[in-house]
Amino acid sequence: MKRSSTSRDAGAYFLYGTPERDANVYHATGFLAPDPIACFGRGKRRTLLVNDLELGRARRLARPGLRVVSLSAELRRLRKRTPKGRRSPASIAQADVAADLLRRAGIRSVRVPASLAVGFADGLRRRGVRLEVVPEPFFAERVRKTDEEIAHVGDALRATEDAIRHAFAILRSARISGRSIRLDGAPLTAEKLRGKIEEFLYARGFLALGTIVACGEHGVDPHERGHGPLLPHRTIVIDVFPRSCRTLYYGDLTRTVVKGRVGAPIAQLFDAVAAAQAAALREIRADAGGDRAHAAAVAAFTERGFVTRRGKDGRPEGFIHGTGHGLGLELHEEPRLSPSAGPLPERSIVTVEPGLYYPGVGAVRTEDVALVTRTGHRLLSRLENPVRID
Amino acid sequence: MKRSSTSRDAGAYFLYGTPERDANVYHATGFLAPDPIACFGRGKRRTLLVNDLELGRARRLARPGLRVVSLSAELRRLRKRTPKGRRSPASIAQADVAADLLRRAGIRSVRVPASLAVGFADGLRRRGVRLEVVPEPFFAERVRKTDEEIAHVGDALRATEDAIRHAFAILRSARISGRSIRLDGAPLTAEKLRGKIEEFLYARGFLALGTIVACGEHGVDPHERGHGPLLPHRTIVIDVFPRSCRTLYYGDLTRTVVKGRVGAPIAQLFDAVAAAQAAALREIRADAGGDRAHAAAVAAFTERGFVTRRGKDGRPEGFIHGTGHGLGLELHEEPRLSPSAGPLPERSIVTVEPGLYYPGVGAVRTEDVALVTRTGHRLLSRLENPVRID
Repeated sequence: MKRSSTSRDAGAYFLYGTPERDANVYHATGFLAPDPIACFGRGKRRTLLVNDLELGRARRLARPGLRVVSLSAELRRLRKRTPKGRRSPASIAQADVAADLLRRAGIRSVRVPASLAVGFADGLRRRGVRLEVVPEPFFAERVRKTDEEIAHVGDALRATEDAIRHAFAILRSARISGRSIRLDGAPLTAEKLRGKIEEFLYARGFLALGTIVACGEHGVDPHERGHGPLLPHRTIVIDVFPRSCRTLYYGDLTRTVVKGRVGAPIAQLFDAVAAAQAAALREIRADAGGDRAHAAAVAAFTERGFVTRRGKDGRPEGFIHGTGHGLGLELHEEPRLSPSAGPLPERSIVTVEPGLYYPGVGAVRTEDVALVTRTGHRLLSRLENPVRID
Repeated sequence: MKRSSTSRDAGAYFLYGTPERDANVYHATGFLAPDPIACFGRGKRRTLLVNDLELGRARRLARPGLRVVSLSAELRRLRKRTPKGRRSPASIAQADVAADLLRRAGIRSVRVPASLAVGFADGLRRRGVRLEVVPEPFFAERVRKTDEEIAHVGDALRATEDAIRHAFAILRSARISGRSIRLDGAPLTAEKLRGKIEEFLYARGFLALGTIVACGEHGVDPHERGHGPLLPHRTIVIDVFPRSCRTLYYGDLTRTVVKGRVGAPIAQLFDAVAAAQAAALREIRADAGGDRAHAAAVAAFTERGFVTRRGKDGRPEGFIHGTGHGLGLELHEEPRLSPSAGPLPERSIVTVEPGLYYPGVGAVRTEDVALVTRTGHRLLSRLENPVRID
């Protein structure tokens, strides 16, 4: 059995990261900054360490009750006490300051997220701070969404839905000419449609990066964003995941459509994906395993003869990814709908996005977002799902 | 003296991170992916580990000569060999795979960047891999820019210059009405001008986040992005730092302007900042200390009576930040122009951006970008520097 740390350390944690990129730091501080900040806390006593440039903003904007400390001032104090030859590089010096502050607060052992920079972690350890490295979710409460958080994700989904409808309208106004889709006298490209979607969202206060508009074989590679002319009679996967610049919460929705004729092989993909999504949604409820929702999607595909296997070049084809992931301050967070996923916490928010990928045929993925409830789920996304756009 | 590792390990390194956010991973692999990837290498033998979804893209797009390995396949192999009860969480399992691959490559000791996640680092250590944690610059060659890199930064600077000129044109077309600046019948706000700048850059293929348009007292807080109506006769700091979506290199330029009358106290700030920037630029040359350029800027301010001190509320005022930073795949990278900075490598690219910040008066910062040469510097930015906009 592990010796437990002293009772004064119970629940003490330490974080170091850039709030705009580190959801735990933002969650703990409510403070947005472009550079790394540190914070530590135990229960309701929390301290935020920022450099001098951030002091004013931190005092105004960080969560009430946070004590704001000038990292730079502490650093200067520590440097004065250290002989010049023995001064450490900046990153280590910050760990020195942090260790010093922890010691003065009577904290000898802290929980840190697995993502903490090893340079910082080793710096704390060298100063005698014991670290308990905790995998995600670091803050269990981040998984169970508050009403306010559900509203934030809802706002992001409304914008995402409108952006995808905007893409539908552009595809509708384009026309098929031989082997190409043309708009305003030029071929409509993936880049152009992506640009329209991202500009639409930017004007609404959402940052959409890496939007996928992937036609035909591009769609079969699920991380290929898509490029070049969009083709008629082929699948076009549109996956949009913007972040609100105001609340920092994400939306994430995918629709697949065909401009032109839908051949039988493609129609079968659409039917199977719809069935798999419905099957997965039926398995979602609080405390049910995320693995069960994934298994249900797999079973729906298998029943219809869509098997997952390795293609000629060793690349997998069929249903080649998990069924979904948590959504919130991070685009991909806990919980998961995947083969090894655990129970779904009540009030967690998950995407449900089965897909099929077959070289030479095409790719179909449909992604909606659900709130996990005690009795099942509440669908948070409200977007039509047309197969054809004409 | 530290025992050196075996000769087979000489120069072996290990990286784990998301290429879009981790410049070292992108530098080593040339591969862009939205999820973390791992890579390790020794000399010209380099291995890239990606999950199955990335295999196809990685083989097509990663740097020539990189061996691409399926992380998922290795993970499945390792899991089959491990009793179910002893299987580790996903992040640790990845470290297991990495340690296994390193062992098979005969590598027992690796250099890792200080930013490596401690969860991953501890996983490697538990498997017997010795880590040497290296501060930035992890890859020394990233500091000395190639001709291609200089061209990439130049492209980003051209776009930044045009975006700031676009902002100047908008300010010029606005008119002063009493205590406000009006455009098209409404007050011109920081948000509106920022939006115009960022939309302009987006349309050119550059992503500008966090653009600063900070008027009057907002400018005095150097990390305040600015909000609300812009005011006549006050300083407006415009700091724009977009990243190319194509090359991933950054531009970074700042201009400060006044719409309306420039009072004597503000005019003195402008004069002093121009003198400080010129003084700092004169000290830049290969192998000269980055601390000397900073000291030259400080001296120029001091000579003119602009002292740096703590204001009434403890917040510093005057010249409250470093003189500049390296620019490339990261917005802030090595080398620095700051009190503790070391020698400037030839062909490094630095911003030169002294500024003065006085509550009740205003803020002036001018930022240009220079290439460090053997005999001095070559200015890479080419943007006019008007004080007044009318």
